[in-house]
Amino acid sequence: MKIVRFTYGAQDKWGVLNEKNEKKINIINGNIFANYNNHNSYDNYNNYEVSDEYVSLDNVQLLAPCIPSKGVCIGLNYYDHAREMNLKLPAEPLMFLKPSSSLNHPGGIIEYPAISQNLHYEAEMAIVIKKQARHVSVENAYDYILGYTCANDVTARDLQQKDGQWTRGKSFDTFMPLGPYIETDIDPHNINITLYVNNVACQSSNTGNLIFKVPELLVFVTQVMTLYPGDVILTGTPAGVGPMQAGDTVAVELEGIGRLENTVSKADKRSCQPLL
Amino acid sequence: MKIVRFTYGAQDKWGVLNEKNEKKINIINGNIFANYNNHNSYDNYNNYEVSDEYVSLDNVQLLAPCIPSKGVCIGLNYYDHAREMNLKLPAEPLMFLKPSSSLNHPGGIIEYPAISQNLHYEAEMAIVIKKQARHVSVENAYDYILGYTCANDVTARDLQQKDGQWTRGKSFDTFMPLGPYIETDIDPHNINITLYVNNVACQSSNTGNLIFKVPELLVFVTQVMTLYPGDVILTGTPAGVGPMQAGDTVAVELEGIGRLENTVSKADKRSCQPLL
Repeated sequence: MKIVRFTYGAQDKWGVLNEKNEKKINIINGNIFANYNNHNSYDNYNNYEVSDEYVSLDNVQLLAPCIPSKGVCIGLNYYDHAREMNLKLPAEPLMFLKPSSSLNHPGGIIEYPAISQNLHYEAEMAIVIKKQARHVSVENAYDYILGYTCANDVTARDLQQKDGQWTRGKSFDTFMPLGPYIETDIDPHNINITLYVNNVACQSSNTGNLIFKVPELLVFVTQVMTLYPGDVILTGTPAGVGPMQAGDTVAVELEGIGRLENTVSKADKRSCQPLL
Repeated sequence: MKIVRFTYGAQDKWGVLNEKNEKKINIINGNIFANYNNHNSYDNYNNYEVSDEYVSLDNVQLLAPCIPSKGVCIGLNYYDHAREMNLKLPAEPLMFLKPSSSLNHPGGIIEYPAISQNLHYEAEMAIVIKKQARHVSVENAYDYILGYTCANDVTARDLQQKDGQWTRGKSFDTFMPLGPYIETDIDPHNINITLYVNNVACQSSNTGNLIFKVPELLVFVTQVMTLYPGDVILTGTPAGVGPMQAGDTVAVELEGIGRLENTVSKADKRSCQPLL
């Protein structure tokens, strides 16, 4: 199923795209994420129900489908991107972080920072965590995954290269668009991934080209840190990264999941991300 | 005043050390942080009161005095450390992140990861953010600061060097001890900072040696990202960084603020950070 989050009056709600009519969203009552109940065990995953109550997809504003406490990102992780860059295949994944303050929504503005002159897109598949995870094994990795969504690992390439450390170039407000849907039933290693700038395809690959697969990434990250429900792992970007300009519309499309579209705008110094 | 957080029955509470008797904690009612009220303005800062009700410091378990959504850390930022490493003074600050999952408490165990053989301490002064901050100017930087506390920027030095990117080596659970107190009334640029391993002083400097001062750091970080109430900026470590072994007790002491003590233990694979 395809899970969405949207504004509904003064509230944010989760819902599910109706299978018979994908223009309808059936509202979810309860929590799609597993709760940590302070007794070192998890509530049953099925602590929610998909109701008959629905709203029209055209009448709501979609939000990022989860609220991550952090985005854990993986560097060089596509065979085609490694070839393109003439880089040796990595022996293990390389991780970096995007803060929760960089979260952005489907349709949201990507702010072109005043202090950058080289803003890049990076199309990625994001893993959405379902329940608290630490020291996960390959065998049970999928138990911790709610599903997959589209992500754009927006990067101020000039600042990334200048600093050596990637944090500043990757962490601006609006630099982590996610959505529009979390697809729960899909093979994450056979998905066509395409990035469009103004409807011209600039990146095109398949998640079958991932060097480190989904279970390995979960093992690697949770060997280091606890992942919370709603956290995301951005699995890396394929060949073809490049610049965006103010006014561009960029879209990350994952076949069978959805299309995440954002527009680029010069940063407005007065803007302030809402407290999530 | 010195603000603490502690477990009180089944609840966590904030309190203030009693000025006449620092063994007593006066309980705070309300919120010491400024609320974001969704109307692009802030509630009055004084939306709390220090009550007459008190508990004994000896009878409570102290917690990290704030709950950061992220720790923003500054690399090389002490003149003495730059000299020690024979490094050129940086032209601007270098930032990296510690995730909220790495938060640790006064008295908490620092877990020595199974995959590291070179765990280091780094004594630091942390700035505690009072209200949501973005595009702060030097002139009003102090309006956004609640106070200052002790931090240990625990680092798996071998992983930091191996990866090039510092994230993995800095982000293990338990690697961001904070506390015990937030001191609200102190000059942040004239504080003696000392790190002890088993009561032997290993780092000794003064925050007067900071290359980039507190207001500049706030400007630099909020040029990139929104800081939320309770977020921390770790301001860098002075000369004398070095290893810790399992069984060691490490203490970060900031004169006029307090002493943050933690012990090192081999990681227990079953451990799981509580959801904060």
